[in-house]
Amino acid sequence: MSAPAPPGPAVVDLLGLVALGELLAFERMAADARLAPDLRRRAALGEMAAAEIGNYRRLAGRLTALGVLPDDAMAPYVAPLQAYHDSTEPRDWAEAVTKAYVGDAITDDFLREIAVALTEPDRQLVLDVLHESRYAEFAAAEIRAAIELDPRVAGRLSMWARRLVGEALSQAGRVAAADRGALTALIAQGDQVDVQALFRRLTAAHTERMAAAGLNN
Amino acid sequence: MSAPAPPGPAVVDLLGLVALGELLAFERMAADARLAPDLRRRAALGEMAAAEIGNYRRLAGRLTALGVLPDDAMAPYVAPLQAYHDSTEPRDWAEAVTKAYVGDAITDDFLREIAVALTEPDRQLVLDVLHESRYAEFAAAEIRAAIELDPRVAGRLSMWARRLVGEALSQAGRVAAADRGALTALIAQGDQVDVQALFRRLTAAHTERMAAAGLNN
Repeated sequence: MSAPAPPGPAVVDLLGLVALGELLAFERMAADARLAPDLRRRAALGEMAAAEIGNYRRLAGRLTALGVLPDDAMAPYVAPLQAYHDSTEPRDWAEAVTKAYVGDAITDDFLREIAVALTEPDRQLVLDVLHESRYAEFAAAEIRAAIELDPRVAGRLSMWARRLVGEALSQAGRVAAADRGALTALIAQGDQVDVQALFRRLTAAHTERMAAAGLNN
Repeated sequence: MSAPAPPGPAVVDLLGLVALGELLAFERMAADARLAPDLRRRAALGEMAAAEIGNYRRLAGRLTALGVLPDDAMAPYVAPLQAYHDSTEPRDWAEAVTKAYVGDAITDDFLREIAVALTEPDRQLVLDVLHESRYAEFAAAEIRAAIELDPRVAGRLSMWARRLVGEALSQAGRVAAADRGALTALIAQGDQVDVQALFRRLTAAHTERMAAAGLNN
């Protein structure tokens, strides 16, 4: 493994990307909460959303400490991340919790992969903003409950999850294109020189999670 | 002053009303954040929203401890609170921060008034969910900045604030009508037997806050 990079443009780009991801995930989950069938579930998705904005605050604080305006660090990623959410608006509660489940998990996988290329305190910060497992458990339980109620839902949600991954990958391509070079270099600098192997690992983890929630990949 | 009431139906009603108020304020503020002119302000309103869901969690926890399903305690108030928000959708950022400013403050005034009629731990819980002053300061600063940019905005926002108070009072009437009697009795049981005096105090505090933000009442 090559030596970790000192905080530089790549780290600023990464923190900007993750901070914006948290901010938009917060807004969309908060909006999707209205699809909940009762107030208890509505509040539960609201709490998942609120956790994201807490993480946003930590990432924005670190950017400020590095002498960077958070808005400047996030700006290059607004279009692709917004496009991801605009193209994946859930139509009902089952789609909303599936989106939260899939989105959180892929984000976490990416963060775990990238953390190895960072020095402290950024490595720990990125590991700290991983989602709490209780949120994934809540979402998976909701998905399983929806399938139990109507087994045909499994097919529809499996297709929806594939679309979420497809849109995410497509926008990841736009993120890489918007990147000023440093972020892509950072990703390649860790253990993950082999980007194809990275994608294989992410895909395998995703398949496993789909099965855990009763969905097919 | 008469003796404070032990936790009973009135306290359950009150906690249900406040919990639902927090949950809906969270959702609407989170949605209104999209009206922000930049990501920094968007995140700031998001953080104000997230604080509400933290308070919701505490209130729901207390209801559960009292042996009541939070959903049951909140149910009577869904229609009026939802109607308040539906009839007061902000059209721009200045209206959004004005709504947050006015809504938080009126809620806090009401909670301070009602706290005196409660026993512990409910009294402290209700005082704990008062909004942090830094949020009001942020909102007031945003309102003043909007007026500085265009002085004509002051008239429009003053009218908007009056509409917010009018809609809130109108829905408060529906809350009282939906109430099963206990909540109204609780409000009358504290120092505030004189409901007209209560309204006068709330109105005076509101007028003062409007002036602090550069608005007329």
